Amino acid sequence: MSEVSDAYQGDGRLGELLGAAGVPETAAEVRELLAGIAAAPRPIDDDEWLRLIAPAPAGVLRGQLVALYELLASADDGIEEQDASPARLADLRAELKRRGLGGFIVPLADEHQGEYVARRSRRLAWLTGFTGSAGIALILAEEAALFTDGRYTLQIEQQTDGDLYARHHITETPPDGWLEAHLTKGMKVGFDAWLHSADQRARFAKACTRAGAELVPVDDNPVDAVWQAQPPRPLAPIVPHPVRFAGRESGDKRRAVAARVKEAGAAAVFLSAPDSIAWLLNLRGADVKCAPLPHSFAILKDDGQLQWFVDARKPVAELAEHLGNEVSSAPPEALGAALDQLAAQSAAVQIDPAGAPDWAYQRLQAGGAKVIKKEDPCALPKALKNETELTGIRAAHNRDGLALTRFLHWLAQLDGTEGITELAAVEKLAGFRAGGAHYRGPSFDTISGAAANGAIVHYRVTPESDRALEAGTLYLVDSGGQYLDGTTDVTRTVAIGTPTPEHCDRFTRVLKGHIALARACFPSGTTGTQLDSLARQFLWQAGLDYDHGTGHGVGAYLNVHEGPQRISKHPSQAALEPGMIVSNEPGYYKAGGYGIRIENLVSVIAAPGLENSERATLAFETLTMAPIDRALVDRDLMTEEELAWLNAYHAEVLACLTPGLAELPEVADWLNGAAAPISL
Amino acid sequence: MSEVSDAYQGDGRLGELLGAAGVPETAAEVRELLAGIAAAPRPIDDDEWLRLIAPAPAGVLRGQLVALYELLASADDGIEEQDASPARLADLRAELKRRGLGGFIVPLADEHQGEYVARRSRRLAWLTGFTGSAGIALILAEEAALFTDGRYTLQIEQQTDGDLYARHHITETPPDGWLEAHLTKGMKVGFDAWLHSADQRARFAKACTRAGAELVPVDDNPVDAVWQAQPPRPLAPIVPHPVRFAGRESGDKRRAVAARVKEAGAAAVFLSAPDSIAWLLNLRGADVKCAPLPHSFAILKDDGQLQWFVDARKPVAELAEHLGNEVSSAPPEALGAALDQLAAQSAAVQIDPAGAPDWAYQRLQAGGAKVIKKEDPCALPKALKNETELTGIRAAHNRDGLALTRFLHWLAQLDGTEGITELAAVEKLAGFRAGGAHYRGPSFDTISGAAANGAIVHYRVTPESDRALEAGTLYLVDSGGQYLDGTTDVTRTVAIGTPTPEHCDRFTRVLKGHIALARACFPSGTTGTQLDSLARQFLWQAGLDYDHGTGHGVGAYLNVHEGPQRISKHPSQAALEPGMIVSNEPGYYKAGGYGIRIENLVSVIAAPGLENSERATLAFETLTMAPIDRALVDRDLMTEEELAWLNAYHAEVLACLTPGLAELPEVADWLNGAAAPISL
Repeated sequence: MSEVSDAYQGDGRLGELLGAAGVPETAAEVRELLAGIAAAPRPIDDDEWLRLIAPAPAGVLRGQLVALYELLASADDGIEEQDASPARLADLRAELKRRGLGGFIVPLADEHQGEYVARRSRRLAWLTGFTGSAGIALILAEEAALFTDGRYTLQIEQQTDGDLYARHHITETPPDGWLEAHLTKGMKVGFDAWLHSADQRARFAKACTRAGAELVPVDDNPVDAVWQAQPPRPLAPIVPHPVRFAGRESGDKRRAVAARVKEAGAAAVFLSAPDSIAWLLNLRGADVKCAPLPHSFAILKDDGQLQWFVDARKPVAELAEHLGNEVSSAPPEALGAALDQLAAQSAAVQIDPAGAPDWAYQRLQAGGAKVIKKEDPCALPKALKNETELTGIRAAHNRDGLALTRFLHWLAQLDGTEGITELAAVEKLAGFRAGGAHYRGPSFDTISGAAANGAIVHYRVTPESDRALEAGTLYLVDSGGQYLDGTTDVTRTVAIGTPTPEHCDRFTRVLKGHIALARACFPSGTTGTQLDSLARQFLWQAGLDYDHGTGHGVGAYLNVHEGPQRISKHPSQAALEPGMIVSNEPGYYKAGGYGIRIENLVSVIAAPGLENSERATLAFETLTMAPIDRALVDRDLMTEEELAWLNAYHAEVLACLTPGLAELPEVADWLNGAAAPISL
Repeated sequence: MSEVSDAYQGDGRLGELLGAAGVPETAAEVRELLAGIAAAPRPIDDDEWLRLIAPAPAGVLRGQLVALYELLASADDGIEEQDASPARLADLRAELKRRGLGGFIVPLADEHQGEYVARRSRRLAWLTGFTGSAGIALILAEEAALFTDGRYTLQIEQQTDGDLYARHHITETPPDGWLEAHLTKGMKVGFDAWLHSADQRARFAKACTRAGAELVPVDDNPVDAVWQAQPPRPLAPIVPHPVRFAGRESGDKRRAVAARVKEAGAAAVFLSAPDSIAWLLNLRGADVKCAPLPHSFAILKDDGQLQWFVDARKPVAELAEHLGNEVSSAPPEALGAALDQLAAQSAAVQIDPAGAPDWAYQRLQAGGAKVIKKEDPCALPKALKNETELTGIRAAHNRDGLALTRFLHWLAQLDGTEGITELAAVEKLAGFRAGGAHYRGPSFDTISGAAANGAIVHYRVTPESDRALEAGTLYLVDSGGQYLDGTTDVTRTVAIGTPTPEHCDRFTRVLKGHIALARACFPSGTTGTQLDSLARQFLWQAGLDYDHGTGHGVGAYLNVHEGPQRISKHPSQAALEPGMIVSNEPGYYKAGGYGIRIENLVSVIAAPGLENSERATLAFETLTMAPIDRALVDRDLMTEEELAWLNAYHAEVLACLTPGLAELPEVADWLNGAAAPISL
């Protein structure tokens, strides 16, 4: 949080102060920079962004900079204001008409196809009022439709106007199918080629062609033309991510990825995924929330040289030396010319058709480059954590487990009559995490679901939905932190007061599945798809299941969701390999009743004791350290092996966390009981 | 077997006898028909094929017909004669040169892409000497290459000449890649469009195009031109498969499949899979071994009318009435014109690009039909067995289990000193099966593997490989029968004498996997891929695995391997649905040591007791009834639930088989012990 600040005294005064401090930029330039900083998530402390203006602004200058930042950060960009939709839609349609477009596609996406987008890119929310995390709108002259998935069926009806938008389930009524059915011959449908991958563009183009219409890229986004208060691009500081955390020099990574690119027959690869670039260059940023990622683009040559396209105002001073002389920087505007140059050389250029912006793909194609469609070559090496990263991740998990344990201890003191609510619990947990070393913020918005709210798989508590934790109910909390040395993601479900036998039965089935996966041994080459049913089998035996994947990859102080590995019903080509991190999170959800999920992160390791077996055999090491609620375990449903696993896990939790609780004896006492063995 | 016959007295004498019996065909015509009958597998009894000549030939006529059949059936067609390769290859190259072809593709395939091909289609074996069940040869003017999989690495080296053929592993060195690398610009490579699917043709065409060469269809197969003694097409009798076995009228099936075709937007579907046509028309034949299938083609219209393209000499007299007047027959030569007619109407025609001959696909394309590529529409409904089929299948399994149990009892009397060999065991087992009601022959070549031979997954015993069943070793026997009311496939592994602790450990791990799959409950929509690891988990825990699928679909008196469902590591789109039959066959193989496999067939059913659960939940019903060797079960590795399953299974085996053993008290006694419960 920023400290309490003085009132802003105007650009004139700021100019004087900047001049006196020897800052070369004008007040107008600094205002623009601050607007970009304010368009990024609020930083943990002000010193981070102040460094982008001067090494250490102090006194009145600092006060005025903070005041201006606060002013800009509090400006209304119109995203939360939901009743503005009819006029906005009318404005957009007028703009489309002016440009000769019969329709336009408004995705929830940015130029980097990231999970979290900057406020500037929340065009869908600004236009329609829908603030969920996944959706797309199709705007035609007379009709408009909004598509989202089952998580948001209710929310989309509450937030958007049914008279303006037909609302559809995205898999039942795919947007391209809807488009094809609602187009007329000869119509031109616009799309912003920066916001769609080549694969997405191909699907919409096919739909348009079938309908005798045409999909055309727009030069600048028509939504931006009518969104007056649209924030600028975020300009959060980009800082080095030191090798003591990253474990591997950037040059080494670049040469290894370059070798993969060469092997694919390409002379260069175009990169746009923020986590790939952050991993490759050992740097971190803060352009979006919950992930330490800067927005930029890169071209990596097959010799390991890299061109980095980034706003020059973002990197902190020492980054240039950190990057070395094999990385050259250029402004993002120079990207087109660089792609043209590759194309002019008829170079073979690798690009990810599912992740890179179609804009770059088309530019390469148009220029005559030989485009090689292939998955981002950083995805796999980034997923294979090195020993330094694994050591850091374990340390981060111990710190995170300490915070969660303090929270669970606090929860355990409740008897259901205190009126503690989901929101209060979120704040309490955030407070415990905030004190941890290397903590940089949450890795995603905490899911804090009491009773029936716990059954909403992607529930995010709002003041409207907030409810108290009441005795006789279950409480589910799924949260995680970003630490300089690792990313965490953990879910615990606890009984508030005395649970029912049904609570215990379902919880135990989920736990047995969690344990079956945690204990799994499997030969090298096995995919997560092959292991998924291990986690579901005990629910299946009772005619139950859960409608989400069992596990996702997790980055090292990067995205909390990363590929290529996953554990899910859906076919996956990516084998689980040593060093990969994946979540183990079976659940059970009773609509209108309660939700249960038990989530630990695990890393893939060589199976202990089987190093010399017939097949190279892998297993999981559990990283998350926090007690699992023993009050919900139905001992009679557990086998000896399962109880032995739970007891050994709790013993490890105790051993890991107890040293950190030396000054909190009451928490240590509680943990001693909470992690005590259940007798066999 | 045919009875001992008189010597054949010549076509003149036969002509007289035919005339006297009022048979309208000439001796030459009958000789040609008999050559076709002799080109099919030897029938179970002579009365079957004699009906194709006259209702019931008797006396001297019968004797002369049998004599001529024996003469033709014993003719040397050159397949087994392996030293003929160099001259044959030279002849083929001369033929290719004469036709202006730089190369030719010789697959192991027939016009129907069947698992078993007629002797006429064994061009690969005739040319190269390789008699394995999967392979392909590429013949160029100066080079030739042979491709097969890991099962045949050794065999291909023994049977073929390394100076003539480079031998490759088919996935390590894919034939299309080899072709691309060995072609020169402008070369024409021939292929027989009847013997490749459209998908296969596309792969080879791509390789040729990349190399600047051209893939061209040939009008008639150049191998046939140089194979003097090539057998004719098989002409085995086609008989009705009555509704009391099939459970559903052909007209009903045709209308249901026609509806699926219509739904796919097609006016007709082209069918070439023998089991699809046999299922659809409720008929069976004998053109290939081990499966009761006639070769023919069909066009099913979207109104259920069917054109059947079949050699008119094959159907027995009563088949016409059985088929009714919505099925019209035409000779196979009329197929092209019929496809042209569809194309001339610009009809949308559905065709399976992975199963139908490219010849038909190209003919439709060339004529201007709208070709809809889609899986054979009979595959799924054929896989969903109806109640009549399931009743028959259970009955067939009981009879088959009786035969296998008599065999196991016979084996149990051995002490390893009798010198009984794998081949002798095959004959013994065949003898027990032969006596069963509705038995029509084996459903595949029996795998009879003693000790180290058991570790060869697709082992087929030959006089050269035959070895004795010795004390202290394991014996694996995988066999199955074709019965009018069902198809069986079962594997048992038994200890000869006293097994070692390792034998028992491995067997028990395989058994635990078998039981885990047999006991699985899973929601509707689950694929076999999701269940595969249940069967492997206990081997994985010890660093072990097996390199084959866990389960394949099985037909109802049809192919022993059918789709679309399977249980395997490889991704499958086909959900397991009630009525599907699938094998449950985990194994373990120690090269040079022993092989273990435990295989039962199971059917997919609604999970008992879970009919009203939250999710529609499915389970398996075990169909195979034969004891599992208790001497190999390590009781300490088994959980109570697993032992309970084994004991319940054995109790069911006893209940099913004991009534059939009334006249074999010593077998009944033995079974009582072999299926006795193991105490919990």
